[in-house]
Amino acid sequence: MVNVAIIGAKGYAGKELVRLCLRHPEIRLVALTDLVEQPQPVSEQFPEFRGLTELMIEPTDVDRISTQAEAIFLALPHRVSQEYVAPFIHTGRRVFDLSADFRFTRIETYEQTYAIEHKEKELAKKAVYGLAEFNRNKIKDAQLIAVPGCYPTGALLGILPIVRAGVRLDSPIIVDAKSGVSGAGRKPTETTHFPECNESIMAYAVGHHRHQPEIEEKIHEAGGENARDVRLIFTPHLIPMTRGILSTIYLSLAEEVAEQDIARIFQEHYGGEFFIRLLPAGKFPTTKAVTYTNFCDIGWKKVAEHLLIVITAIDNLVKGASGQAVQCFNICYGFPEQTGLV
Amino acid sequence: MVNVAIIGAKGYAGKELVRLCLRHPEIRLVALTDLVEQPQPVSEQFPEFRGLTELMIEPTDVDRISTQAEAIFLALPHRVSQEYVAPFIHTGRRVFDLSADFRFTRIETYEQTYAIEHKEKELAKKAVYGLAEFNRNKIKDAQLIAVPGCYPTGALLGILPIVRAGVRLDSPIIVDAKSGVSGAGRKPTETTHFPECNESIMAYAVGHHRHQPEIEEKIHEAGGENARDVRLIFTPHLIPMTRGILSTIYLSLAEEVAEQDIARIFQEHYGGEFFIRLLPAGKFPTTKAVTYTNFCDIGWKKVAEHLLIVITAIDNLVKGASGQAVQCFNICYGFPEQTGLV
Amino acid sequence: MVNVAIIGAKGYAGKELVRLCLRHPEIRLVALTDLVEQPQPVSEQFPEFRGLTELMIEPTDVDRISTQAEAIFLALPHRVSQEYVAPFIHTGRRVFDLSADFRFTRIETYEQTYAIEHKEKELAKKAVYGLAEFNRNKIKDAQLIAVPGCYPTGALLGILPIVRAGVRLDSPIIVDAKSGVSGAGRKPTETTHFPECNESIMAYAVGHHRHQPEIEEKIHEAGGENARDVRLIFTPHLIPMTRGILSTIYLSLAEEVAEQDIARIFQEHYGGEFFIRLLPAGKFPTTKAVTYTNFCDIGWKKVAEHLLIVITAIDNLVKGASGQAVQCFNICYGFPEQTGLV
Amino acid sequence: MVNVAIIGAKGYAGKELVRLCLRHPEIRLVALTDLVEQPQPVSEQFPEFRGLTELMIEPTDVDRISTQAEAIFLALPHRVSQEYVAPFIHTGRRVFDLSADFRFTRIETYEQTYAIEHKEKELAKKAVYGLAEFNRNKIKDAQLIAVPGCYPTGALLGILPIVRAGVRLDSPIIVDAKSGVSGAGRKPTETTHFPECNESIMAYAVGHHRHQPEIEEKIHEAGGENARDVRLIFTPHLIPMTRGILSTIYLSLAEEVAEQDIARIFQEHYGGEFFIRLLPAGKFPTTKAVTYTNFCDIGWKKVAEHLLIVITAIDNLVKGASGQAVQCFNICYGFPEQTGLV
Repeated sequence: MVNVAIIGAKGYAGKELVRLCLRHPEIRLVALTDLVEQPQPVSEQFPEFRGLTELMIEPTDVDRISTQAEAIFLALPHRVSQEYVAPFIHTGRRVFDLSADFRFTRIETYEQTYAIEHKEKELAKKAVYGLAEFNRNKIKDAQLIAVPGCYPTGALLGILPIVRAGVRLDSPIIVDAKSGVSGAGRKPTETTHFPECNESIMAYAVGHHRHQPEIEEKIHEAGGENARDVRLIFTPHLIPMTRGILSTIYLSLAEEVAEQDIARIFQEHYGGEFFIRLLPAGKFPTTKAVTYTNFCDIGWKKVAEHLLIVITAIDNLVKGASGQAVQCFNICYGFPEQTGLV
Repeated sequence: MVNVAIIGAKGYAGKELVRLCLRHPEIRLVALTDLVEQPQPVSEQFPEFRGLTELMIEPTDVDRISTQAEAIFLALPHRVSQEYVAPFIHTGRRVFDLSADFRFTRIETYEQTYAIEHKEKELAKKAVYGLAEFNRNKIKDAQLIAVPGCYPTGALLGILPIVRAGVRLDSPIIVDAKSGVSGAGRKPTETTHFPECNESIMAYAVGHHRHQPEIEEKIHEAGGENARDVRLIFTPHLIPMTRGILSTIYLSLAEEVAEQDIARIFQEHYGGEFFIRLLPAGKFPTTKAVTYTNFCDIGWKKVAEHLLIVITAIDNLVKGASGQAVQCFNICYGFPEQTGLV
Repeated sequence: MVNVAIIGAKGYAGKELVRLCLRHPEIRLVALTDLVEQPQPVSEQFPEFRGLTELMIEPTDVDRISTQAEAIFLALPHRVSQEYVAPFIHTGRRVFDLSADFRFTRIETYEQTYAIEHKEKELAKKAVYGLAEFNRNKIKDAQLIAVPGCYPTGALLGILPIVRAGVRLDSPIIVDAKSGVSGAGRKPTETTHFPECNESIMAYAVGHHRHQPEIEEKIHEAGGENARDVRLIFTPHLIPMTRGILSTIYLSLAEEVAEQDIARIFQEHYGGEFFIRLLPAGKFPTTKAVTYTNFCDIGWKKVAEHLLIVITAIDNLVKGASGQAVQCFNICYGFPEQTGLV
Repeated sequence: MVNVAIIGAKGYAGKELVRLCLRHPEIRLVALTDLVEQPQPVSEQFPEFRGLTELMIEPTDVDRISTQAEAIFLALPHRVSQEYVAPFIHTGRRVFDLSADFRFTRIETYEQTYAIEHKEKELAKKAVYGLAEFNRNKIKDAQLIAVPGCYPTGALLGILPIVRAGVRLDSPIIVDAKSGVSGAGRKPTETTHFPECNESIMAYAVGHHRHQPEIEEKIHEAGGENARDVRLIFTPHLIPMTRGILSTIYLSLAEEVAEQDIARIFQEHYGGEFFIRLLPAGKFPTTKAVTYTNFCDIGWKKVAEHLLIVITAIDNLVKGASGQAVQCFNICYGFPEQTGLV
C-alpha cells in the first residue's frame, strides 16, 4: 500500500485521478488539495464520489502532505505546477506531474512554447517522460515523471514504433486529431458552452497548438538521424462528445515499406503491451471502445505507395492523462502495470 | 415594410430575432443594440450572419432608434427591460418585450417572483400577454406586447383549451417540462458546460421556477371560477440537446369527460390555427419535428378515468420566444400570421 | 470464486454483465452464449473486450454450461428466457434472470401485460424479485432471482420507502421517467437511429408501457392496505443520451406529513445502504453522477402541502439491470454487496 | 413558377428537398414519389411537414409526372437513379440528379468505383457537374445536372481555387473529413444506432471511399497539366452530430506561394459568391454556423513553408446535397441564386 496525495483535485484530470486511486488496490488516498480557501468535501465538487470517500479538498500544505504521502500526483496548470513539484521532490517524494512543465528535454522549447521562463531547469533535467510503453526502464527509477499530454499520447503511440524501427519519413507528419470537450478543462467558456459546441465541429489552434512541439521533440529523440529533421503538422479539432481523442496520422514514407513490415513493426513494439490493442488489418478504432479505459486502440493502412495512415483512439482523461499517470505509478512501485486500471 | 430594431441582440433570443427578421418579407431590420461599449458587426458575434447583413450591434440610443424604427423587439433580462420599454412606448413605438417584466396582470406576483419592485406599474396595466392563439384580438391593437416565456408557452398551449372549455380540474396540474440547453441563455456556466450537461439529465428549480406563477396566473384568468383555485406544480429539466421543450402535462379531471369531448375541445380551439398541430389519437410529439419552426405540436391521451395527459412540443427559441414575437408582430401589423415564419 | 455463465451476451445488458464480471474478484467467467450459429469471440461483438478476455459467444448448450457454471445470468428477451431458466434451475444452478418472465407475483398480470401464456407457472412462484435494498433476505436464499426492470428500479427505489412507512397516498402516483437510448436495446430501429433521436425528446408507450404493471404490483405488495388501491401513471421518455434514467415521481399525500418525517423515512430505509445516496435537502440528482455505477441517487422536496416530489437517478444498464444482478449475486454468495461494483 | 417533382422523397436528401421547395417562392411542388406500394401523406413519413403540405408520396409514374412537372429532382440511390433519369430526359424534363450516376466524366471510373456497368453512357456525356460556383455557365443550359456528393462539395470548394489558379501541388492532397450521421442516410444500421455512434468517433472506408475518385477527377479536370497527376487521400470520419461536414484539407505546395497570394486567389474566385464565405485570416469555420444553410465557410492558413491548410464547413444536406440542387435549379431557370435559400 502506497500513501498518495493528489494536488489539483478540482479539475477533470484530478477528478479522474481520484476515481482511479479509489479503485486501486495498492493505493491509499490520503490527501486532496487545490486552490481552495477552506477545506470542502470532494463529494461536493463531484457528486460522483459521494459515499465513496470522505476526503476533503484542502489548501496545499506541502510540508504536511509530504509527511502523509509517499507519492504525489500533480494535476495543476503549467507554470503553477513547477512551484509545487520542486518542494515535493526536495522532501524526497515521488512526483507524477500531469502538467507540461517537465515534459521537454529542451527547456528552450518549453520556454518558447509556453512563453514563460522555466524556474526549475536543473530539476527538469532529471524528469522522465512518462510515455509508459516507450520509457518504462527510465520511469522505473525516476523520482519525477512528466506525464505526457493527451494529444501527444495519442499521436506518439501511433508514430513512435515506425520511427524507432528506422523507417525514414518525409516531412511533414500530419496529425489530424479530434478531441472530446473534456479536453478543454473544467472551466466554462464560450467555446465549451453546450449550445455552442453541441452539433458542431471546429478546428482550433491550427498550426500553433502547444502539444505540437512536445510531439515533435519526442519524435526527434526517438528517431535518431532519420527523424531528426522531420516536421510535424498538428491540427486539433473539438467535437461534440465528452471523452476521447481520435488521432488520424498521415505518414509519408521516404522509402518502400511493405504492409507486412508495418505489421511486423507494430507487432514487435506492442505485441507484449497490455494497454495497446492492435486491430486486425483493415479495422480502425472507435473512441467508444476505449472510453473509461487506459487502452490505446490502433489501426493502420497503407493507402498509397508512400502513404501510411495510422489511427489511434484513447480516452483523453485516462490513457491521455490520469490513467497513464497511474500506469507510471505502477511501474515505479513494481506493481503489475494494469493494477487498478482494469 | 416595417422598420424594426432589436434591443438585446447578443443573446440567443436576440440572435433568433435577427434570423427571423432577415427572412421576413415585410420587415426592414434597421438597428441592433445591446450592452456593448462600441459598435461591432453582428456577424462577429454570430458568424451565422456573415454575408446576410452588415448591421452592427451598437449601444442602445433610445432617441435615435425611435426615429429609425417603428417596431421594437426587446430581448433583455427582466428588470433591465423595464428601463427601455418605457421610453420607447412614450415615443409612440410599438414594443414586443421578450422579458418577464410585463407578463403579469398582478404586479405583486411579479414583484414576489422576481424579488424586485416594478418601476412601471401603470405601463404594465396596458401590456397585453402575447400568447397569440389566445389573445389575438387584444394583441392586434396593443402598443406593448409581453411575449410569453418559453415554458409558459409550452404549458399553456396544452392546458388553456381544457380550462377555457370549462372542464373542472382538481389540483394540482402537473407540468413536467424538459428543455434543451439554449433555454439557459448564452452565458457560459458550470451547469451548461458541455462535459457537465452532455450525457446527463437533471431537474432544477424544483417547486420554485419563475415560470410557475406566470403559467398559474394565465390559467386562473382563462378558467374563470372553475380554475380559480387550481394549483400548478412545475418541474423543469435540463436535457442534452440544444433546442426544444417537451411539456408533459398531467391534468386531473374533476368530472367525467369523454375522449371524444377532449378531441372536440382541442379541435374547436385549434382547428383553424396554423401554428398548432394536433396529432392523431395515440400519437405524441417530438421536439425534432418543431425545431427551427414556430409550430407547437400537441398529443394527448386519457390514461385513467380522471387523468388526461397532454404533451406539447415547441422550439424554445421560436414559438417559445422570438417566433412568437414575430407572430404577434404580424398580428399587430395585419400581415398573415405565418408571414416570415415558414 | 464462483464459476459464472452469461446467457444472452450479445445485448447491452449482456455486455454490461461481461464488463462487470470481468472486474469481479470472486467471479470466474466461464461461458458466454447467445443466439449465434457458431462461436465467435466476444471481442468481435464488442471491441471493448479485446485484450480482456478470450471468451467466445457460443450457442447455448444448457447441459454443458450446467457442468461448467454454478451461477447463470440470463439476459434474454421475455418469453425466450423462460425456456432457458427452467432447465438451469432443474440442474440445480442458481439463476439471475434479467427478463420480465419471473418478476410478477400475479402470473395473470404477466400474461396480460406481455400477451403470452406463462409456461413455467410453478417455477414463477419460487422466484424472488431482486430489488436488493428491499428483498435482501429473500434474495439470500433464492435459487431464482428475477432482476427488476430498469424503469421499475428507478421508480420503486423512490416510492417504496414512503409506502412501506405507511404513508397513505392518493391515486395516482405519477412517474415521469426519462431514459437514455441504450434502454431501447441493441437492435437498430428508426426510433433509435442517431439523426432521429439526437436533438429530440419524445414520450412513448404513454399509458401502456409494460413496466407500469410491474411497478404497480410491487407498490401494492409493499404498502399493505394503504397502498392496495393506489394507481400508477407511468410516462417514459426517450432523451438523447446513451445511459441513465431520471425518474421524477409525484406522490399525492393523503395525509399531512412533515418534511422532517419524509427525511426520517428515507434515512431509516436507506441510511445503511451503500448503493443508495440520499442527497441533502434541496438537492436533486443528475444521471451523470451515477453513470457506470450501481448507485441510485435520490433527492426529494415537498412542493405543496400534499405533494411530494421524489427524483431518482440510476444507470439503466447497471443499477437498472446488470449491476443489480451482480448485487443480488453478491447477496446470494455472501460477498459484501459492493464487491466488484465499485 | 416552375412545377417540380421530387423522386425519392423518403430519404434525408428528399426530405430536405421538400423543405426547401416548400419555401421557394418560384417553385410549385406538384409530386413526391418513392418506392412505396401505395400513396401515403409525406407528413406521415416526416411529421415536420404536417400543416405545410398535403402532398402524398406515391409510386413513381414517370409518364404522369412528366406531364405534371417541368423540373425533376431525383434523390435515389446510385444505380437506381439511372433508370429514372433517362425517361425523364427523353420526355424533355430537366433533371437534377443527386445520385452519383452522372457525376463522372470518365464512365470507367464510375464503373470501377461503384462496381456496376453504366447503362446510360450516352446520356452521361451530356450531364453537367453541378458544383454551382465552378460550373455555372454549363449548368445554365444543361438538361441534366449531376449534383455533387456531400464530401466532394466540401473538398472541392476548398481545393479548386488553388488548383485553378495554377498553383502546383505535390501529391498527395489529404482531405480529412468529419461528417454528421445524417450523411449515412435514413436507414437504421448498427453503425448509426444512437448508443453506438453517440460519444464516439471513427474513421471509415479509409482509402477506398467512393467519393475519393469523384473528388480526384474534378481536381484533375480543373487543374490542367499541373494537377493531372496529383493524388488524393480521403479519410472520412463519423462524428456524433446530425448535420454538417468539416473538411480539413492539407495541400502540399510544390512551389513558393505567399500568404497574400493565397488570399488573393480565394478572393478572386469567391469575392462575388453569395454562398461562399471567406473567413478573416486566422479564423476557421464551424459547422454550426452553416447548419440549415447553403453556405460554405472557408478558412485557411499556411502552417509551414510548403503546407497550406484549408478548412471548409458545409451542411451536408443543404450545400452538400439538396440546397446545391436548388441553387442549380435557380441557375437553370434564371432566378437569383439565393432564391428560396436564405
